[in-house]
This record gives sequence, structure tokens and C-alpha cells, in this order.
Amino acid sequence: MHRLLYKDIVARALAEDLGFGDLTTSSIFDAEEGEAVIVAKERGVLAGLMVAKEVFAQVNEQIDFLTFFQDGEIIQTGNCIARLKGPVKGILMGERVALNFLQRMSGIATTTRAAVDSIRHTGTKITDTRKTTPGLRILEKYAVRIGGGVNHRFNLADMVLIKDNHIKGAGSLTEAVFRVRQHCGFTVKIEVEAATLEQVREAVDCGVDIIMLDNMTTNRMVEAVKLIEGSALVEASGGITGERLSEVAATGVDLISLGYLTTARHALDLSLQLV
Amino acid sequence: MHRLLYKDIVARALAEDLGFGDLTTSSIFDAEEGEAVIVAKERGVLAGLMVAKEVFAQVNEQIDFLTFFQDGEIIQTGNCIARLKGPVKGILMGERVALNFLQRMSGIATTTRAAVDSIRHTGTKITDTRKTTPGLRILEKYAVRIGGGVNHRFNLADMVLIKDNHIKGAGSLTEAVFRVRQHCGFTVKIEVEAATLEQVREAVDCGVDIIMLDNMTTNRMVEAVKLIEGSALVEASGGITGERLSEVAATGVDLISLGYLTTARHALDLSLQLV
Amino acid sequence: MHRLLYKDIVARALAEDLGFGDLTTSSIFDAEEGEAVIVAKERGVLAGLMVAKEVFAQVNEQIDFLTFFQDGEIIQTGNCIARLKGPVKGILMGERVALNFLQRMSGIATTTRAAVDSIRHTGTKITDTRKTTPGLRILEKYAVRIGGGVNHRFNLADMVLIKDNHIKGAGSLTEAVFRVRQHCGFTVKIEVEAATLEQVREAVDCGVDIIMLDNMTTNRMVEAVKLIEGSALVEASGGITGERLSEVAATGVDLISLGYLTTARHALDLSLQLV
Amino acid sequence: MHRLLYKDIVARALAEDLGFGDLTTSSIFDAEEGEAVIVAKERGVLAGLMVAKEVFAQVNEQIDFLTFFQDGEIIQTGNCIARLKGPVKGILMGERVALNFLQRMSGIATTTRAAVDSIRHTGTKITDTRKTTPGLRILEKYAVRIGGGVNHRFNLADMVLIKDNHIKGAGSLTEAVFRVRQHCGFTVKIEVEAATLEQVREAVDCGVDIIMLDNMTTNRMVEAVKLIEGSALVEASGGITGERLSEVAATGVDLISLGYLTTARHALDLSLQLV
Amino acid sequence: MHRLLYKDIVARALAEDLGFGDLTTSSIFDAEEGEAVIVAKERGVLAGLMVAKEVFAQVNEQIDFLTFFQDGEIIQTGNCIARLKGPVKGILMGERVALNFLQRMSGIATTTRAAVDSIRHTGTKITDTRKTTPGLRILEKYAVRIGGGVNHRFNLADMVLIKDNHIKGAGSLTEAVFRVRQHCGFTVKIEVEAATLEQVREAVDCGVDIIMLDNMTTNRMVEAVKLIEGSALVEASGGITGERLSEVAATGVDLISLGYLTTARHALDLSLQLV
Amino acid sequence: MHRLLYKDIVARALAEDLGFGDLTTSSIFDAEEGEAVIVAKERGVLAGLMVAKEVFAQVNEQIDFLTFFQDGEIIQTGNCIARLKGPVKGILMGERVALNFLQRMSGIATTTRAAVDSIRHTGTKITDTRKTTPGLRILEKYAVRIGGGVNHRFNLADMVLIKDNHIKGAGSLTEAVFRVRQHCGFTVKIEVEAATLEQVREAVDCGVDIIMLDNMTTNRMVEAVKLIEGSALVEASGGITGERLSEVAATGVDLISLGYLTTARHALDLSLQLV
Repeated sequence: MHRLLYKDIVARALAEDLGFGDLTTSSIFDAEEGEAVIVAKERGVLAGLMVAKEVFAQVNEQIDFLTFFQDGEIIQTGNCIARLKGPVKGILMGERVALNFLQRMSGIATTTRAAVDSIRHTGTKITDTRKTTPGLRILEKYAVRIGGGVNHRFNLADMVLIKDNHIKGAGSLTEAVFRVRQHCGFTVKIEVEAATLEQVREAVDCGVDIIMLDNMTTNRMVEAVKLIEGSALVEASGGITGERLSEVAATGVDLISLGYLTTARHALDLSLQLV
Repeated sequence: MHRLLYKDIVARALAEDLGFGDLTTSSIFDAEEGEAVIVAKERGVLAGLMVAKEVFAQVNEQIDFLTFFQDGEIIQTGNCIARLKGPVKGILMGERVALNFLQRMSGIATTTRAAVDSIRHTGTKITDTRKTTPGLRILEKYAVRIGGGVNHRFNLADMVLIKDNHIKGAGSLTEAVFRVRQHCGFTVKIEVEAATLEQVREAVDCGVDIIMLDNMTTNRMVEAVKLIEGSALVEASGGITGERLSEVAATGVDLISLGYLTTARHALDLSLQLV
Repeated sequence: MHRLLYKDIVARALAEDLGFGDLTTSSIFDAEEGEAVIVAKERGVLAGLMVAKEVFAQVNEQIDFLTFFQDGEIIQTGNCIARLKGPVKGILMGERVALNFLQRMSGIATTTRAAVDSIRHTGTKITDTRKTTPGLRILEKYAVRIGGGVNHRFNLADMVLIKDNHIKGAGSLTEAVFRVRQHCGFTVKIEVEAATLEQVREAVDCGVDIIMLDNMTTNRMVEAVKLIEGSALVEASGGITGERLSEVAATGVDLISLGYLTTARHALDLSLQLV
Repeated sequence: MHRLLYKDIVARALAEDLGFGDLTTSSIFDAEEGEAVIVAKERGVLAGLMVAKEVFAQVNEQIDFLTFFQDGEIIQTGNCIARLKGPVKGILMGERVALNFLQRMSGIATTTRAAVDSIRHTGTKITDTRKTTPGLRILEKYAVRIGGGVNHRFNLADMVLIKDNHIKGAGSLTEAVFRVRQHCGFTVKIEVEAATLEQVREAVDCGVDIIMLDNMTTNRMVEAVKLIEGSALVEASGGITGERLSEVAATGVDLISLGYLTTARHALDLSLQLV
Repeated sequence: MHRLLYKDIVARALAEDLGFGDLTTSSIFDAEEGEAVIVAKERGVLAGLMVAKEVFAQVNEQIDFLTFFQDGEIIQTGNCIARLKGPVKGILMGERVALNFLQRMSGIATTTRAAVDSIRHTGTKITDTRKTTPGLRILEKYAVRIGGGVNHRFNLADMVLIKDNHIKGAGSLTEAVFRVRQHCGFTVKIEVEAATLEQVREAVDCGVDIIMLDNMTTNRMVEAVKLIEGSALVEASGGITGERLSEVAATGVDLISLGYLTTARHALDLSLQLV
Repeated sequence: MHRLLYKDIVARALAEDLGFGDLTTSSIFDAEEGEAVIVAKERGVLAGLMVAKEVFAQVNEQIDFLTFFQDGEIIQTGNCIARLKGPVKGILMGERVALNFLQRMSGIATTTRAAVDSIRHTGTKITDTRKTTPGLRILEKYAVRIGGGVNHRFNLADMVLIKDNHIKGAGSLTEAVFRVRQHCGFTVKIEVEAATLEQVREAVDCGVDIIMLDNMTTNRMVEAVKLIEGSALVEASGGITGERLSEVAATGVDLISLGYLTTARHALDLSLQLV
């Protein structure tokens, strides 16, 4: 991911944590050089190394950040992920912010990987939602990719997604699609949320690109997939918890979107230690 | 919380989600007025109403945001939390961002309340850490307060916290405290992280304000509390999971800090529906 | 277009023009109220009223901005487009910035309309490019829509466009498409630039969404359209000047992209007069 | 021009074009190094090299940007203006933004040079106006200088320009000048717009620094110049198209201001090619 | 002064003082309404009311700010300058920031007025320098005007001032003026710093607009003024303390610039009291 | 002080002074290299070197900034504080801004040092207030430290200070303290402003951390100190001018806060000369 995409996020995080200065560290340290390691205290999928690196670079460009793993690799408890060398003051000043990013992103990657693994034998893919942490979407969507998921639309502008509220507003699904086609360019894909088989049929007739099966039973999904017959991509959505994943994947849907990848997350346990 | 503290956070979140415009909604709606409700799909403690309100105010100041609960109240599945009235386009444009804030903040408040409730019979308080989401600390610390916790320091500047890395750097705990006192003003409290009873004793001798018992066994904590004898506040820290909370509280520590309040969180399930 | 999308652009433009204050106007005027009109000195298609309105709103919210036309309407020399009422100081302070926006946007809409009109009898559409003015793309793409064009991709993130440089880099068109499919989500359309019929054929075989015929002769385009046979949208591109537009449209391409909509533009002549 | 004056403009332009990442380029390229050239596809005056250079520096500081021409030089079709060396990904990511700046600025310089050349035998100079693109004035005024023009005032704060609306407001030209002198410092020059010979006489009596002859016939200008007799600089203004330039210059005015330098511009055709 | 010129300065000052929230006030007050007055505790010239008003408006737009004096008026100890009505929390939150602006600006106005008064019988004017507080120049220059001074150039861009370092660099004063004329537009006045009568003569020969007599004795100034004979404005500069002001004014210089207006300032004593 | 804390302040100051470019310097100089020195024209305590260095670094990173003193050292008239080497254009462009910072900060350090020295024989310390220049608090508080003072709270968030207005609002001092304890975390110290001995007693009973004796006579202070008996820190406040300092210090108060450290300041006279 290009540094231009996250350097301001990092700068704001540092400003937030630094306040008007690190009282403790600047009282105790002067210009001492030192070394530190970032160590895994839990098994998981690593994500966000470049963001952690950017944190230390912004704190003090003389800090050397050497990594032993790459994003996407599985790390085990005790693994040394990175080694830092440079002014101790800067290392300790950046510690918490760097870990806050790295732990959250690795947590998301780990959650995603688990979901991906559980349906790896099928052709179905795991995708994310817009239920991301305000201000950090670009990092969280990246972590989903690192975990093996594919990204759904990034924001309200890069794809059309017609939901039940839009259908109500337009009067009918067909009318909603019509209005979107009048208004939007040819570069944009159209997805429609369908709650019933009738709506699925209507969406097929409209020739949309993607059909989202919203909160359907597994049986209903089977029928929907049959009905759509490859004329559009099919996305299953709505509270599909871990156990139900393979069942849904078996219906032949192309995608399962999981809000919990970014909402119910768990920050992977990592720590920084001076050596 | 003062609006000046979160209005830029909200503006950035909207910019992130809006991209170069909401294709779907602006294709389908014109200036229609409508109503919507935010409904709880899960039981929990509500937090963040003013942030959700700010989201809609920034999207369109003609949206009326009427609340039926207050931050800190328990909401039950099916409860209608707020009612919105105004241009449908604006309501749908703000929906996801408002929910993303409200769900995360309510999730933290709910987690905190559970911890607080489990030791309510004791005098011990629940406090947070700096393990917050980059950029959202002010909102997350607020949610902890709403959940019944008390806030630990906000950033590196509003309190001194001498950790093992600082002690190593200074040579000894006593030297670290000495340096801090040389350097910092009289307005700042000093906390020291102690891993052993020897360090606890040393901290007591230094007359620090707060002593953190880091990853001690419950028995060791009992001894430490006895040793400190009220001469400093005592904070227990380090992987204290839900079950062990009351055991630790029973040792007589003043505070238990829980990183998981803000790291292992769960976004409370809420939804917005047009009516 | 949502105000959140242009209010910062307007604020920066005002800061640029205001410097450390409007010496002339603030020397001469105090709190006098007055009226002014914005008058067309040239025929064209109007675009950007809401931006002009925003300029005056930011200068002084007591300025009343009343419009007599809507974006997209044709205005004739002498037409009064808008009437302003309020503090004269504010009206004159905002004048130049408001006109700078309105004239440029109307110029683009006018140019686009001319192109659109010249091929109105065909099914071919006019689209834009990324050759826009740095910092104003959102306004210029809007003006293209107002002029009757459809927008091509907004930036590097909302669609894939594989150009000759990418094909060279990947080794072949097919390999480039393959890599893109490995890396990008299902929400994104893929367009490929083809310079020869062989490349067109290769693109068809890859099943891409859109094929751009780059700098082809009209005859070659006819063959390409036949070859593609509706399996992808077809975009004609490359120095297609006004005269050649209908000839190219007659080939049956779906889209003609015109860089000059936003590069060779002419600011529509408008002026503001106190009344 | 100092880099501090344009680095934020460049950063915003890159953010605008990059969105949440360059899908195409980052799918296809990894860390390959490569070379590219920027080539002229049209004859003109080059302007803006340092801005193009800044674009690539911000994208990736490892990109080497070597120039073969300097701002102000005439480039011919086919001339290689610059050569880039470095990561291909970065070169392609910065391409469009760099060209958008360079083409616009060179277009303005070219237009200006043509005007300047057409009256080079006279003592009259070409100057610009505030009819510039919002947000880019500093670059466009620079391009005018590069083209051989002299800059008129930069914004509302660095000179006084009393126009007809101000004269109306003050009651008379003399009163307007009086008020300005009461209010403004000694550092600021005063220009007055005169539509009639009477106003010219009044301006001369007021001892202003510059008198603008607004939309006068050539004959009237001759009289005005005689009347002013060198007691003030004389600026001719108002729709003076190319053909009438030498006629107006022959009247002996010191300056001719041309709005079209920055409004009717044409982006010089340049392209970037991998080699 | 236009609100656009100081609203960001105020916003930053509030952010600086607010940190992550006003602990004291938000602990004690809820939504109580109250009244407060701003009272003078010292005699002086008032300046900056609109800035103080803006502070409270940004804190809480429901605070009513009623003034009893205008900028430029003399206030006496005990005078009630303004009355505030509204939420007490907001009034106390804005208090310190509002006073910090108002006291500093009034201090500068008071100092300036004293200097202006001491030479009021002469035709000489008091002017300021660029020795202002970083970030607050626009407010400090305004306070100088309110105190009766006239502003010198605002920044490096709105006038040319050739100092000894520039003369050294160019080789001679004449060469320096020549280079400036080659490079700068006709809108810009040229001032030259002269340390000797020879330099004064050279400056006169160059026809510059303003000549600064740098650190000259009073006698030397008399000669310089005679030599210049009205062909340029004359500015006296360099450590002219209060007592020497009328002596220098008597030499017939047009302007005396005083760095101490903005460097040796004294914040006028004001306080806010709840009533 | 960490560079992250002042680099934006410096950037804004440069933007303010640079406007749309340094006309004089860029007319006269090209790429000439040169040397300059910063020289003291007055005796005082130096503060702010790193900020001056940052100014030149932002103007041109090729400027070498070599210092001969450190912050906190006493400089004498004629001392050479720093030597600059690099492009003359950049040195002159940064000169005024660098000096504006350095002179103000050194002025504050000098004033503070004088106060500190006058009570050096006592145990009392000098502290500052929030009466700082808007936007520069972090630099001014730093200068106070450099001068030998200790910092009072930085902003409204890092300590509680209950003033008379708060006491009035709460009904009583005791109630105010109670409310604060309900609301604020354990990390925050509480100070109370007491105007009478009764209030001092009440504050002692409440067990607050610091008691401010507001505008008390020296005798009253003696009684207050006796009454408090070391149970809280004691701060004397309110118009304690230079002469009265030792008298107050002799009462045994721990701290004397002086608003004039940052309000009545005097910029230390420094100058930059090319060599």
C-alpha cells in the first residue's frame, strides 16, 4: 500500500498519543541508543508492518526497523517480528502507537484468515463491508486482503449498492436500477440487495452485476443461486457466523460478506521489549 | 463531551465514506423528506449519541435527530434509540458512519459495564489503557466512562508512568523517579510499574502517587497491598480476564486496568430503518 | 452534488484571493447593503451555481443568493443568472472567486454539450478523462455531466484501466488482465486499451468489461466493433476533434472520450454588476 | 519558485488522483525499475518543471527526474523534455498528475509568449488578471512570468484596485481614492479603473499610481495616454483579442492586461512513455 | 477585519487550551445559564473584540456577546467592556483564550497609541515591522492600525525591501534595484535601506519609492531628508525609543518604524467575572 | 522537545511570512552559497535554538545550522550564537521567522531566570500560567523551563483548577471538589483557588493536592502556610511583581505563579548578519 495513503493517519495517531510531549521518556532518556524487539504473544496472521515502520520513521528517522516476517505470514507465540535500533527515546515514544496499529490490523487479518480457511475447499470468497472503524478503513480493508479476503466496495462512490431503503424510495427494484443507470457512469458496477426470490428474479431481469442475498436461509440461497444461473455474481450476507460459513459456501454463492471481520475484532497480542 | 473534541473526527469519517459522492442515494432520491429510526438489535449500554447526531448534522443540518435514551442507559433488543426526520438522501448518506461510531462506542461501554458490575460490591474501580484505536481515543475513553470505568491517563503528557523499560534505562526505579521529579512539573502524578515486591517497596520509599502491580499473582497482590498500606493508589494490571476480576478486586487494589475494554471489543448491533 | 464535496475547495480559493484582506473594498465600504446581478455576456450552458452560492455563503452568510436558472440550462447573452442581496462588502469580496468557478464550470458544460449535440442522433455517449485541473476534478466531472456527458473513472482507485505501459510491464495484455484479477476485488470493472485488432481480440478473449480503441482510424474502429460484437463496451479515444465526432459515432462505439472537454476549455463570459 | 509555495498543491492533487490506491499499477508492478521520458507532442513554451518534479518526489523519492530543458524555453514536437528513472510503479502513478500540471502551465506560458511576441517591438507589457483557476493562482501567475508577461496584483491584499463598483459605492472616484488613502498603508500602490476621459482626468488629479483604461476604443486610449502624460502607469483592459494587441500597444499604454491568458487556455500536449 | 482571516487562528488556540476537554468546568457545570462581564483592570486602548467574540462563538454559539466599547476606544480601569450571556460552561471554557487574544491586541494598540500621540503634532506616522509573533501577524498588524499606526508591508511578497544583506549580495544598491525591477511586477513598491548619505543619494538616483534611514543620528536624518527632497517617502528605523521619537519626527521623515510595538509588548490587564 | 511538537507551528509561521514568495531575495539571488551568523545584541538566556534550526531546515534542507551555545546558557552582547552555511536565498528567507521565535523564547527564558534568581536562596519555585500567546503555548512553556521555572498545567485537560467562578457555580468549595472527584480520573491532581483563610481551611479539609492563595497579603500567606502545614502544595498567585517576590517566597509557599513571564515579555535583541 502506498505510503501516501497512511502517513497522515499515522501523524494524527502520534499527535493524539504525544499530547504536549512524552513526560516520562524525555525525563529519563537523553540520546542513548538501544535495541528493541517486537514479539508475538499469540499466534496469528501478521498485517501492518509498513504502518508500524512509518510510526517509528515519523518519531525519529534514525530508528532502524528490521523485519523478520512479511504481512500475511503466520506468526507464533514468541516469534520476533521486528527489531528496532536507534535512540531509545524515540523507540519508546512510538511503541504504543505502532503496536496499536499492528495489533488491530493483525487481528483483522487473523479473523479473516480463519473464515477463508474454513471454506477454502469451495470456490466461495470472503469479503468485507463498510462496517469499519471511522478513519481507518483503508488499513482495515488492507488487513482483510492480507487475511485472504477480497474487498467489497471502498465507499459510497466506487460502486452502486441498492438496499431495501433505496428500493422503498424508488418504488420498486426495477425503478431503482433504472434511476441509477440514468445517473451513473458506465464504469460502475451495480449490486442489488434481495430479500426474497421475487426480488432475485427482478434483479436478474434488470441485468445487474451482483445480487446480494440478504438474510436468507440456506435453502432459499440454493434456490436463488439456481435462479440466477451465473448471470450475476451472488453475495450472501447477514449474520453468517463462523459455523454456518461452510454451509452457505456450499450453496454455490460467489461471495460471503462478513461484518464481523472489522467489528468483532480482537487485537493480536504483541509487545515491544528493549534488549 | 464538547463538540470541538469530535467534529473533525466526524468530518474525516464522512469524507472517508463519501469519496466523491454517494452514487446510489443521489441517483434515486431528490429532495424527499422521510423518517427513520435507529433500533437496537442487541442488549447493551448506549454510548455516542452526540457523535451520531453530529454525523447527521454535518451531512445535512435539516435532519432532526430525536433521542429516546441517554448515553449510559441500557438498551434492549428492539428498543428505538433515536428517530430522524428530514431529507432521506442525507439520512441514508450518514447512516453507516453514524452507526459505525455508535456501535463501537456502545460496544466499549457494554464491555466496561460488565467488568464494573462484576466487582461492584468492592471498592475497586475499572480503568482503561492507551491500547485504543488510533485517532479515536477521545471517543473510546468517553465510552469507558459511560460504561462506569474511570479513565487512566489520556496520553504521554498528562501523567508519568514509569515502566520496566524506563527503569532499565535509568538504572533503577529510584533513579527513574528522581529524574522525572527533576524534569516534570508539580501538576503531574507519578505512577510506577512494579513487577516484584522489592520494586513495590522501592516505589513506596520514593513516595510515588500510584503503583502498578504488573502481572502479579493474586497472592503477591495481597502482599503488595499490605506493603503499600494506602501510601499510594494501587493498580492491578496484566491480562486480568473476566473471571479473575473479582478475585483481584478482593485483594484491595484500588484499580484494575483492562486493555481489552478497547482492544477486544465488539460493536453493538444497531440498525437504521426508514419508516 | 453534496456540499461536503466542495466546501473546502471554496475555502481554499477564498483564502487564496483574500490574502490578508480586501484592501480596496474594506477601505470604501462599511456595512452598506446592496444588490448585484450575475449576467451572461455569452451564450452557453450554465454549471456551478451551488459553488458560486457557497462562495458568497462563506464570505458572509447574510448574502442572499437567488437564482433564475438551473445548472444545465442554456443561458443567452444578457440573461440575469442570479441576484445577490446583502452587505456590498461581502458581495464584492466574493465576486471574482465565484465567477472564476462559475465561468470555468460553465465553459466545460458548454463544450461538452456541443460534443453531445453533434452525435445526439447516435447511441454513442461522450465521456471525460483524468486530464482535469489538479484539485478541481470533482467540479469538472460534474460540469461534464451537466453538459450531457457521462463520467469516466474518477481516479486511479475506482476502476482498472490497463494501458500500453501496463501491458509492456506485464509482458502481455492477457497477463496484465490476469494479474489485475488476482489482485482486485469483484466490485471493479476492467478496461483495456487496445491499439491493434489483435489486442482487441485478446481483450475480448479475456472477457474484459470495456475496450478502449486507442488512436485507431475510423475503418479500423468499424472492424473492432464488429469483432467485439457487444461482448464489451467500446470506447473510442485519441485526439477525436469536433469534426470527426459523428464519423466515429457512426462506427457504433458506445463511448467517445474527449480530453479537450477539460483541457482546451474556455471560461464562459459572465460578470457581476451592482444594481 | 520556492517549493513551500506548491508542495501542498501537489499533495492535494495526488490525493485526488490516487483515491484509495492505484489499482491497475499496483496489481501489475512490484518493485521493477524502469525509465520513462516526457515528450512534447506540440510546439510551445515549457513551464512547470519543478512542479512535475515535485509530483514524482512525493510519489517516490527514489525516482530520478532529469530535465533537458528549462522553464521558458521553446520545445518542439518530439523533444524529450525530461527523463525519469526509478520504480515503474511510482512513475506511472505520478504520470497523469505531473502532466496535468505541466501541460496547463506550459499552455499558459505559450499563450503569454504569443501575446508578448506580437508587441515585442513596442514598450508595452503584457500582464495578467485575477481570472485564474481557483487554487492554482500561484502556478498560473508563475507561468505568465515564464511566458514573458509581468504579474498584476496577486490577490485582494497586495494592491488597491478601485473599480466602477467601488466608485459607485464611494460616490465619486476622488472620494474612493481618499477613503483608500485613509485606510491603507504607504506600501500599497493604487490603481483606478477609468471608463471615460473625465475619470482619467480625475484619477490624474488624485495622483494615483496606475490608471486602467477600461474597454476604451483605441482612439480614446490615445487621448487618455496624452492626458496622463506619464504621471501614472497606464493599463489597457477589456477584451483585447490577439489582433488588436499591436494597435493598442501602439497607443503608448504601459500595460495590456489579458484575462484570456488564464481563462481560454489550452493545455500543451505532452506525454509520458516508458522506454 | 474579515472573519475568514482569524477563525482558524481562534480554532487552533481553542484546541491548544482545551486539550482533551475542560475537566474542571465539565465536572462542575451542566447546562446552567449565566452572565459574565469582561472588565478592564488597567487603562488602555481596546483592540480585538471581534476575536474574543469569535472565541465564544466557536465554543458555544448560544453565548451572547454584547459589547459596550469599540476597538480603538480608550478604556479605563473598571470599565465593563463586554457582557456575556449563555451556558456558564462555555463562558468559562472560552475565558482564558478570549482574554489572551484581547489582552495582547489591546496591549499593542495601547503601545502604538502612546507613540502616535507623542508625535501627533508632526506629520510623521508610526509604522510597524515584521517582528511580530509567529502565526498572529494579521491580528498584531490590525492592533497597530487600531492604535493609530499605519502598517508596513505584511510579508515578503507584498513589497520589496532591499536591505544591507541584499545590497552586499547584488554588489551595489543600484544593481540590487535593477535586478528587482527586472523580476518584479509594476504593482510593487520598492524600498531601500540606506545606512549612509551616499546610499541615500544612490537610492534617490534609482528612483525608489521609499528610503529607509537605518540607525542614523538625528542630524544625519536631517541631511538625508533634505537630500531626498520629497522624491521618495522617508522611513526612520532602528532602536528609536520613546524619548527620541519627537526628535526624529521633527527631522521631517514621513515614517518611523518601531519594532517594539510588537516585541516589547505588554498584555493589557483584563478579567472575566461571573455576575 | 520533540520536533513533532513544533514543526507545524514553524510551517505556519513560514507560510505567513512568505505569502506568495520572497520578492526581494528571489530577485537578487540565484543559487549563491554564503554564511551568516546570529549575534546577540543584548544579554540574556538563550531559548529556542531547535525551533530556529527547524525554520531553516524547512526553508532549505541544505542550510547547515551550527550552534555555539545551548538553550539555557547566558549569552552576552556580541556573542555569536549560531553560524549558518548554505544558499543565501534560503538564509535570508528564513531570517525573520527564525529570529521572531528565538527572540521571543529567549525573552521569556530571560524574564523567568531573573525571577528564579531573585528567590534562589529559598525553596520556592517559579511557575507559569495559561496566559500564553495563542498557538505558541508549547514553546513558551518550554522557555519557562529553560529559564529555570517549572510548568503549571498545560491546558484545561491535564489538571483540575477550581477557581472562584467554579466555587460560585457549585455552591461551595467542598461541593466543587466533590463534583470533580465524581467526574475525573485518579490521574489528575486537584488545585483550589482560595481567597480567604476560611477557604484555605475548607480546601485542606477536602484533601486537595494544591492550594492557590489568590491575591493575599504577605501576612495572610504566612497564616495560610501555617494552616496548610504541608498537607498540600501552596501556590501564591496574583500580581506579584519582581520586588515582592522574595517577600512572598519567604512565607514558605512552594510556588509563585507569574503571569508576566509570558504576557509582559520582551523579545531578546538578536540579529542575523551575512559574513
